[in-house]
Amino acid sequence: MSGEDAPAQQQNAEEQKQQTQDTKTPAESPKTESKPDPPPTSESTEAAAAADAPAAEKAPEEDTFSYRALVLTGYGGYDKVKLQVKKGKPVLKSGEVMVRVKMCGLNFADLMARQGLYDRFPSPPVTPGMECSGIIEAVGEDVTDRKVGDKVLVLNRSGLWQEVVVVPATNTFLMPEGMSFEEAAALPVNYITAYMMLFDFGNLRPNQSVLIHMAAGGVGIAATQLCKTVNDVTVYGTASASKHEVISQGGVTHPIDYRTRDYVEEIRKISPKGLDIVLDPLGGSDTNKGYNLLKPMGKLISYGAANMLSGQKKNLFAVAKTWYQQFSVHTLSLIQGNRSVCGFHLGYLDTETELIAQAMTTILDLHRQGKIKPRIDSTYHLEQVGDAMRRMQERNNIGKIILTTEPMKEEEKKEEVKKDEDKKKDDKKKDDKKKEDKKKEEAKKEEKKKEEPKKEEPKKEEPKKEEPKKAEEKEEAKKEEN
Amino acid sequence: MSGEDAPAQQQNAEEQKQQTQDTKTPAESPKTESKPDPPPTSESTEAAAAADAPAAEKAPEEDTFSYRALVLTGYGGYDKVKLQVKKGKPVLKSGEVMVRVKMCGLNFADLMARQGLYDRFPSPPVTPGMECSGIIEAVGEDVTDRKVGDKVLVLNRSGLWQEVVVVPATNTFLMPEGMSFEEAAALPVNYITAYMMLFDFGNLRPNQSVLIHMAAGGVGIAATQLCKTVNDVTVYGTASASKHEVISQGGVTHPIDYRTRDYVEEIRKISPKGLDIVLDPLGGSDTNKGYNLLKPMGKLISYGAANMLSGQKKNLFAVAKTWYQQFSVHTLSLIQGNRSVCGFHLGYLDTETELIAQAMTTILDLHRQGKIKPRIDSTYHLEQVGDAMRRMQERNNIGKIILTTEPMKEEEKKEEVKKDEDKKKDDKKKDDKKKEDKKKEEAKKEEKKKEEPKKEEPKKEEPKKEEPKKAEEKEEAKKEEN
Repeated sequence: MSGEDAPAQQQNAEEQKQQTQDTKTPAESPKTESKPDPPPTSESTEAAAAADAPAAEKAPEEDTFSYRALVLTGYGGYDKVKLQVKKGKPVLKSGEVMVRVKMCGLNFADLMARQGLYDRFPSPPVTPGMECSGIIEAVGEDVTDRKVGDKVLVLNRSGLWQEVVVVPATNTFLMPEGMSFEEAAALPVNYITAYMMLFDFGNLRPNQSVLIHMAAGGVGIAATQLCKTVNDVTVYGTASASKHEVISQGGVTHPIDYRTRDYVEEIRKISPKGLDIVLDPLGGSDTNKGYNLLKPMGKLISYGAANMLSGQKKNLFAVAKTWYQQFSVHTLSLIQGNRSVCGFHLGYLDTETELIAQAMTTILDLHRQGKIKPRIDSTYHLEQVGDAMRRMQERNNIGKIILTTEPMKEEEKKEEVKKDEDKKKDDKKKDDKKKEDKKKEEAKKEEKKKEEPKKEEPKKEEPKKEEPKKAEEKEEAKKEEN
Repeated sequence: MSGEDAPAQQQNAEEQKQQTQDTKTPAESPKTESKPDPPPTSESTEAAAAADAPAAEKAPEEDTFSYRALVLTGYGGYDKVKLQVKKGKPVLKSGEVMVRVKMCGLNFADLMARQGLYDRFPSPPVTPGMECSGIIEAVGEDVTDRKVGDKVLVLNRSGLWQEVVVVPATNTFLMPEGMSFEEAAALPVNYITAYMMLFDFGNLRPNQSVLIHMAAGGVGIAATQLCKTVNDVTVYGTASASKHEVISQGGVTHPIDYRTRDYVEEIRKISPKGLDIVLDPLGGSDTNKGYNLLKPMGKLISYGAANMLSGQKKNLFAVAKTWYQQFSVHTLSLIQGNRSVCGFHLGYLDTETELIAQAMTTILDLHRQGKIKPRIDSTYHLEQVGDAMRRMQERNNIGKIILTTEPMKEEEKKEEVKKDEDKKKDDKKKDDKKKEDKKKEEAKKEEKKKEEPKKEEPKKEEPKKEEPKKAEEKEEAKKEEN
């Protein structure tokens, strides 16, 4: 997919330099710009086919039509998602609509995709984004239930982080009166995920108990609100202490600071018999803990492997550890415990349009009744997507992170550059501090070794533990070279 | 547990001889009969404690009080369940009731227990039986909601195949007007199992599709009827062809003869996208087949390992094969398929009295409304328990097999002896035929070997395949000696 970087991106001299280095990767090598590049549709193969369509079929305004798009140019850190300009007005196929995007939602799957950890995502270069809100700008043939000017929320496998998108009309849902574009972009992925887990697999009923990990995240807040639509449901929610006030107000009965407490112990103190439902976005050893917390007829619903995300680039050590510890269960264990283990991921459910439409209808109804309301954590410009992703990955958000397609003002841009430079200085300071700490630690170890020669043996293992990290660095280096 | 064989048992000279041989096992060595033996309560440790209680606490009629009971005397074939006479009236503890049993239900778990394959079952000697119906004959202290004369159905971990049982009042449920004792004994295990699977784990809703294996069995018929309480549910049911008419009338939409057809292929022809719910009582490789038949958001509910049952004694080869092929699943596979795998066994749910009471209330309501009705396959006297178990294990039943405590009439007994002798002759004939067939087969092989010397190599493997069987025979022999 061709495209040039938007001016906003070029203001950052440091970043530009980085890009030049990156051009070694074929994904980013410049391509002929004479062939206009339409926005990706639900299937990237279709998009490619559309790009190859004869020029005669294209509208006359096509050559002047352009729009900004975020593009994942290769797997890696935050800077791999670049703002580019795409040219050419797409030709709509039967059943499709074109949407002028207002707001986009950020999801964990987008972070996994950037690191190359999400197999459902097309290969780079590709535009990320599973949800957005906007206004219909054109409708294709055979679309009878949408018209130009309709405000819609959109759900798609990928490709929605851009100003213009083309999707099947069945992937759009009419926004109810009084819903903001921000709310509409925050709704689809988190609320459908929480809804299907709690009410289809979980079969949530009055008086039951639910554990919600990352209770201050997008799915966490959606799940808490949906739990509260059922009578007398006890919600355990894990989040760092600074977020407890907000999640308590949102409906979490027992907030638990997973950083300072063992959440299993805390839950057992209050509910010795265990829980009815555990929602598990973490994977790895946490799935096993969740399984052991289930009471008879309890359901564990695994919907991610956030534990695999450690640092901005793929951390092979974290991935391997999470994979190695990933939960596997034997039916005889399930029978003896009267338990259920479920897996959910909306990204693998995209062909089930009817199921999704049913869930969406119920969710929009609940919104109309005032029973649910997305909590917006923060809104970033497309230019700031790196900061947005960092905020999510470092789990600093409470609620949904939104990207707006509204262009950044000039003075904001200048501020951004300054912030960026400060951040880099800050990062360097952090790095220096880490190095210093490491040196100090090593010095301490050396001293200890001298002091306690008897306990020397277990310490011999230390270098072994470091090995995977080194291997991983090498792997990363290789990737950068490719 | 002491006890003497009931007269009915002694009529069979062959069986008596067998018993004499069996006395080598400590389980069956004669014990002092002066210490009366109360019927087992819900926990065998409690029963033991009661047996050791001082004589002063016992009622005066205790010594003359006696009743017939089926007792599993050791793991093995059908003849390991013997009819004995227990003596002594039990003293009720607080919260308990004594029930004069009319009818008992036969379940797969009883067959597994007899072969030593059900770890939830107390060690022999012990009275099997998880469900029965009868009339309350005495109530202990603090029992306010049951009175002498109440007709009840009873659910217990074991111990119900006898004329008198003592259980916690909470394990009894009042029989509704117009329900027969046979129906009442057929209801608890099969209907609670089917109900919890379909409506708790399965979350069955209109327009969904369900696969029911062994659709002519007790759970199969219960599940079919419960599916029909929901609109437009499509039921696939496996059973041998001779049972298709009955199960179709009972509500199975697509009966499949698993003996002559590949059920996976048959289902894919009609429902290419797969199924919403698979109920799996078989285990082994069938669990994997069921898992692959699930559509997105589909639920596989495993509730047994009937494939382990092969022949009347524990078949280590069948057990090992089923165990080896037993399904195990990784959460990442569940996530990518949006699937759920659940395990259910009522025997492991016996502490969840509230959950069971809720299910039972709904089931009795549905019975009152005429929406469900147990189908009785056949009723056997306690003396005929071997025949009853054989009928179930050989899957000749359509519906529930019931044991009645009503004593056999003299002329029936004489007929039984004749039948028994005929059966033994028949068994001998079958054995002789098998031996002859084997000889013929071996002779054929020998001939083939001579004819096709080139293809000799793969045939060398044949003796290897036989090895597990020999090992298993040795294992069996060891067990018999203990």
